[in-house]
Amino acid sequence: MPIRLSQLFLRTLREDPSDADVQGHRLLLRAGYIRRAAPGIYTWLPLGLMVKAKIEKIIREEMAAAGSQEVFFPALLPREPYEVTGRWSEYGDNLFRLQDRKKADYLLAPTHEEVFTLLVKDLYSSYKDLPLSLYQIQNKYRDEARPRAGLLRGREFVMKDAYSFDVNDEGLEVSYQAQRAAYERIFTRLGVEYVIVKADAGAMGGSKSEEFLSPSPIGEDTFVRSAGGYAANVEAVQSVAPAEIDFSASPAAEVHDSPNTPTIKTLVELANSKVKKHDGSSWSAADTLKNVVLAVTSAEGKTEIVIVGIPGDREVDQKRAEAFFGTDQVAQATDEDFAKYKVLVKGYIGPTKAGAQFLGAKAASGIKYLVDPRVVMGSSWVTGANENEKHIFGLVMGRDFSADGVADIAEVRAGDLAPDGSGELELARGIEIGHVFQLGRKYAEALDLKVLDENGKLVTVTMGSYGIGVTRLVAVLAEANNDDKGLIWPQSVSPADVHVVAAGKDDAVYEAAEKLAAEIESTGKTVLLDDRAKVSPGVKFSDAELIGIPTVVIVGKGLETGEVELWNRRTGERAAIKLDSVLSAVK
Amino acid sequence: MPIRLSQLFLRTLREDPSDADVQGHRLLLRAGYIRRAAPGIYTWLPLGLMVKAKIEKIIREEMAAAGSQEVFFPALLPREPYEVTGRWSEYGDNLFRLQDRKKADYLLAPTHEEVFTLLVKDLYSSYKDLPLSLYQIQNKYRDEARPRAGLLRGREFVMKDAYSFDVNDEGLEVSYQAQRAAYERIFTRLGVEYVIVKADAGAMGGSKSEEFLSPSPIGEDTFVRSAGGYAANVEAVQSVAPAEIDFSASPAAEVHDSPNTPTIKTLVELANSKVKKHDGSSWSAADTLKNVVLAVTSAEGKTEIVIVGIPGDREVDQKRAEAFFGTDQVAQATDEDFAKYKVLVKGYIGPTKAGAQFLGAKAASGIKYLVDPRVVMGSSWVTGANENEKHIFGLVMGRDFSADGVADIAEVRAGDLAPDGSGELELARGIEIGHVFQLGRKYAEALDLKVLDENGKLVTVTMGSYGIGVTRLVAVLAEANNDDKGLIWPQSVSPADVHVVAAGKDDAVYEAAEKLAAEIESTGKTVLLDDRAKVSPGVKFSDAELIGIPTVVIVGKGLETGEVELWNRRTGERAAIKLDSVLSAVK
Repeated sequence: MPIRLSQLFLRTLREDPSDADVQGHRLLLRAGYIRRAAPGIYTWLPLGLMVKAKIEKIIREEMAAAGSQEVFFPALLPREPYEVTGRWSEYGDNLFRLQDRKKADYLLAPTHEEVFTLLVKDLYSSYKDLPLSLYQIQNKYRDEARPRAGLLRGREFVMKDAYSFDVNDEGLEVSYQAQRAAYERIFTRLGVEYVIVKADAGAMGGSKSEEFLSPSPIGEDTFVRSAGGYAANVEAVQSVAPAEIDFSASPAAEVHDSPNTPTIKTLVELANSKVKKHDGSSWSAADTLKNVVLAVTSAEGKTEIVIVGIPGDREVDQKRAEAFFGTDQVAQATDEDFAKYKVLVKGYIGPTKAGAQFLGAKAASGIKYLVDPRVVMGSSWVTGANENEKHIFGLVMGRDFSADGVADIAEVRAGDLAPDGSGELELARGIEIGHVFQLGRKYAEALDLKVLDENGKLVTVTMGSYGIGVTRLVAVLAEANNDDKGLIWPQSVSPADVHVVAAGKDDAVYEAAEKLAAEIESTGKTVLLDDRAKVSPGVKFSDAELIGIPTVVIVGKGLETGEVELWNRRTGERAAIKLDSVLSAVK
Repeated sequence: MPIRLSQLFLRTLREDPSDADVQGHRLLLRAGYIRRAAPGIYTWLPLGLMVKAKIEKIIREEMAAAGSQEVFFPALLPREPYEVTGRWSEYGDNLFRLQDRKKADYLLAPTHEEVFTLLVKDLYSSYKDLPLSLYQIQNKYRDEARPRAGLLRGREFVMKDAYSFDVNDEGLEVSYQAQRAAYERIFTRLGVEYVIVKADAGAMGGSKSEEFLSPSPIGEDTFVRSAGGYAANVEAVQSVAPAEIDFSASPAAEVHDSPNTPTIKTLVELANSKVKKHDGSSWSAADTLKNVVLAVTSAEGKTEIVIVGIPGDREVDQKRAEAFFGTDQVAQATDEDFAKYKVLVKGYIGPTKAGAQFLGAKAASGIKYLVDPRVVMGSSWVTGANENEKHIFGLVMGRDFSADGVADIAEVRAGDLAPDGSGELELARGIEIGHVFQLGRKYAEALDLKVLDENGKLVTVTMGSYGIGVTRLVAVLAEANNDDKGLIWPQSVSPADVHVVAAGKDDAVYEAAEKLAAEIESTGKTVLLDDRAKVSPGVKFSDAELIGIPTVVIVGKGLETGEVELWNRRTGERAAIKLDSVLSAVK
């Protein structure tokens, strides 16, 4: 049975909804696929549900092909397992928490590692039971501070989350690759453009991890790629350090007065007007060593002051810093922080003071000191002298100062080199549509998931977790497939295969359209039939453009000569064809 | 591809789980269909999910056939619409409430009348858009005080809820009948025994309402039925009032001392020893009028004292009383309540005092007085005289006393007459599996859902709501289809059509079983294949019995002579058949 527009619960909107911030979302609202129920929370109308169901079907088929079995967990879960792993508190305000009538704590699960781990522990106990791969397609909850772009960042959303369980690391690698390959098949079938990028493990606390990003100007993730095939999310890029430098001939460091130079810009200007550079060239920001004072607060709430020395031509990248320190609370030190560390002279901080190491856990200040990977042995820097209005020139790493370690948290820039030698990096924006992740033994250890191995010895299971944002994919597809007239679905997820429009007033037109719809459906294709009486052809065409089924057949005045129009929604091409050749044309 | 037991995420349990209170639930746990995640909250394992998916598929097909369109609402909803209809507070402790990071109030929806109403209001505005029928299949939440019997009364559960929208009452009746008929088809296809009973509108506040109950000794609902075809839930039974009695010749009422007769039993004993009955027979409890003092608290929290006179041989039925008063807070008056009404002499309350009307909103006490329908004009009663240790005999309704109205809240008993004249009632227990309900205009009025009618006049839409407990049906089917060995699924919902057991050690057995499974699947049937090596035939047979696929084929030693065993799980019948006749046998 065709879906009849005369019956379909649908009201297309001519006006853009005021609260929609991106084009794909605007069109999903206008074309009647979804409606907003609350901030970041959406209702699925019939057309939207059809698209979502098609995506879920493809995911289920590929999960089954990858040997993953479907289960279904509650969304409402007790606090205890999330308390054990620490995520009850780590999630902070992002977690929806509630109490039942007995005042027991519950949460609306944002992800299900804990309970999958406990389920497997509950049922399995031997290496013979493994490998195991389980998944679910389910409503998830995350109390986003700023829900945006409709389905792209919602507070109630559907995810496919899969988990693998293996007895050893080799097994995990196989399970990981199987899911990764399934993801490639899924996104290819859906017609979604994607890039696989190395990702930082971040808050999930695991080891190997890759993200599937769909390149898009509205994406929230910045990633880098090289012409030679390297791709990584910004947090995961390893900076390329230059070679160490022989400093045997480097001139000694000199302190210079530097009045009114609290910034890199003023410092460089002063240096160029006052200090001759060894090789005769001009000083640039890249010659300076900027010492950034950070206040790093752990998940447990403990704040530590850390100073990081980075080349003066770069800034700290917030996301890279968060990934490096393993916490999302990394801030530039405030005046209050400085007040507590009176030894620090704001604007004139440097690793040494009066010829001796000053920064560092074991040095005079006692403050932890890390440096950018570019601060290699023998590199020479202009930096603060830890005295008001004084800088030191020609301070050489490894000769004049040292650091407690390396912190690779400076921004990545277009033109930086890829760490694998595949050329220069370019920056792009993308939307995370999938994530594959080697969790390792973190959850199994916390929740005591062990099995007996071949020798009868208890070993901790190693796990992977694998997510796809199902409802987000609807947004990604809508965003990537539209024009100023409306949506243009890829065939694989279109709510129907063919849109048949009865464009005319004569009964004959409606009868022919009905007959054609039935014939197309008899070939196994699905049809959206615009059989609305008293609606003008113009409105019907506009609605067809807005709804975005890729193939449209217009039954209208050509009928007298046995012809209909075949309309390719994507190319806009319209061609008259014989009624009896429609079936082969839409195949 | 068959489902292989060697791979399936399943661990059957030999022991009964300690926390399972009914047989069907015990078996669902033991056979690996579900696991408990929290009180009243369950995880669906692969086999359970397959059964649930089959039920959902049948429901979707019949909803589509009934012209209902599928949508999908959030489970997490804002407070406002439920505030408007009063249900935010009416639901009391049964509602899971929570706040988001901005301290806005949300709920986990137990049912979606409000938001369906708002959605239709949002999109539709004309009588031409109606009738409309929408449904969803979705996780619902109810914080039950006493979750029980596993999936039967859970706190997170799946419902199909449908809503109809019509411009007038005739339309509503048509929509209602369409859903009712769909329900009959659904339950018939599922192989669930059901009775349709008249139901009280209760807290939903509508008019016509019927429940689909599946008769079961573990059911929480009591219903009545007559041999002549009447069926109703206990709350909805209208008591049959006897004919009015000509009281012109009735003797005058007399007050007698009745020391130590605070109960009906002591009163009847005293009456028989002391007072001669007019017609010469013995006094019985049915001759007495018991005046029950009730404290009725409305949803708004206001408590009123009401006295109800019922024949002394019956008790007040709590559910009928709740339905009658439209609140679930109906309690027998406490000593505290009596202390506030000093005019009431506990144990000796009656409608009159010293020959004058005493009970009643406009009488001496000012307390509202209602009577059972059996207290007809001319009926004569033994009842309290409102003095300590005194009763009055022969008090005639309509001559000596009156009431403010009728309250049909006494218990229904086997042997009572059906209100439609179809004979005596019998009582039975059932599980509510579906509910069809004419909501009328309650929600549309509260949320202002109006459309323009044919004359351009705004009219309020009339609605129906229609629910099926999807996960509850799994419990009902498991409860109705089992024996002491395990589950026995109806074909329509069985996780697979055929269970093929490879029972033997030879490779030939496994190869033949594999081949047979593939052949059966090629006919469009699904197979669960027990291909586990190193598992004894005995264990495999036990698991087959526990899992409960209705048709089992055993590939074993008969193979040498080209035979396998066909095992009917329901009848227990096992018969050797030729390998090449299996396909026709399982058809």
